[in-house]
Amino acid sequence: MQTRSVQPLRALLFDVFGTTVDWRSGVTLAAHEFLGRYGAPGADAGAFADAWRARYQPAMQAVRSGQRAFVRLDVLHRENLLAILPQFGIDPQHVPAPVLDELNLVWHRLDPWPDVIAGLTRLKARYIIAPLSNANVALALNMARRAGLPWDAILGAEVAGAYKPTPESYLRTVEMLALQPAEVSMVAAHNSDLAAAHRCGLQTAFVPRPREHGVGQVSDLRPEQPWDVIAGDFMELADRLGA
Amino acid sequence: MQTRSVQPLRALLFDVFGTTVDWRSGVTLAAHEFLGRYGAPGADAGAFADAWRARYQPAMQAVRSGQRAFVRLDVLHRENLLAILPQFGIDPQHVPAPVLDELNLVWHRLDPWPDVIAGLTRLKARYIIAPLSNANVALALNMARRAGLPWDAILGAEVAGAYKPTPESYLRTVEMLALQPAEVSMVAAHNSDLAAAHRCGLQTAFVPRPREHGVGQVSDLRPEQPWDVIAGDFMELADRLGA
Repeated sequence: MQTRSVQPLRALLFDVFGTTVDWRSGVTLAAHEFLGRYGAPGADAGAFADAWRARYQPAMQAVRSGQRAFVRLDVLHRENLLAILPQFGIDPQHVPAPVLDELNLVWHRLDPWPDVIAGLTRLKARYIIAPLSNANVALALNMARRAGLPWDAILGAEVAGAYKPTPESYLRTVEMLALQPAEVSMVAAHNSDLAAAHRCGLQTAFVPRPREHGVGQVSDLRPEQPWDVIAGDFMELADRLGA
Repeated sequence: MQTRSVQPLRALLFDVFGTTVDWRSGVTLAAHEFLGRYGAPGADAGAFADAWRARYQPAMQAVRSGQRAFVRLDVLHRENLLAILPQFGIDPQHVPAPVLDELNLVWHRLDPWPDVIAGLTRLKARYIIAPLSNANVALALNMARRAGLPWDAILGAEVAGAYKPTPESYLRTVEMLALQPAEVSMVAAHNSDLAAAHRCGLQTAFVPRPREHGVGQVSDLRPEQPWDVIAGDFMELADRLGA
């Protein structure tokens, strides 16, 4: 019987929006309060959250393509927020800037899924744990302080100077841990994130979040490749990884 | 009576070697074991620690001056270790590379001063706390996991891409926190570190560590400028900062 020589796993890097925290519920709640004050009658808060998030990938693509220098996600979120206001009957000029600033920071105040804190706490006892997110440092740090996410470090796009899923975003992060890619696993609810990490030589763990996009979600309901680990939540991930 | 308008303090950035951890005791202990096996009879472990540390600033200066691209501190420590071996009667060729690798990682395994964990835990309840050290990420992270340092993030020279005391090392770190320099205080046992941070607009806190260099220490025994806060240890720092 053949055995495959594998390097021991040392660190786990976590996607944040969708995998670790429930962005849509948090943004929808904040949007509901905001629309109640500034929105057109009947403006839908869930649609607002979806419209805001829909501009996330295109905004980063301008940076990834080199069309624009790296700017942190807080800046992109703020631009995207301004851009969607007219869709919801709001003239940006009619909203005080501090109100928009505060709404923009809702991404710093998202709640983790129910299994996350307990799962991360177990995983941290055995592995280095850090976010590898497109969130900027202040966003991920403020989120961690508020929610009690026990990260060992705040890594990610801003530290790497590159947005996922570019190879640089994964490889520079692994390099900062002074590890080899095969000693590190990406943990994500998104097949595309894991595919990019896999191409860089990282291990992969898929944790589906079937309600990330609400009850009608159709994407990422199941693993699309034979990822190294597939777990229902972070507690099962800890079980599977012996933590 | 005039009052000065000051921005509220939001984050504390800590020097690590000397301020947070007792590098000389830890390195001396590891050097003692190493010299017992590989050193000339009577080779002094404290002198070994001092010789290794003496090459720290010159090695970084090559990077700061632009003579050399940024490399992480683990690499400089390894080169400096090789360079001092002959002074202690050791031919580098006679020591297995894994032994040198392991000795080099002693900088990841240093103990904090006795007041540090309790002081940081109090300070973290009110302020963002992070290292701003010339240590690389893996070094500071491994040290934190071993010692229980409760940092909110691992920042510092490697993340900033610049060694202290360059202005970039302070300003890029503050920028990643999405704060203004005046909202951040540097905490250090070294007047030179605080002077550089002050020139960048940061607040300053001096915590003397009169045994950093052993019993005969002559440097940094007292504040050389009117720093914003002067405290005997991290517990007193917490007192002074209302944490």
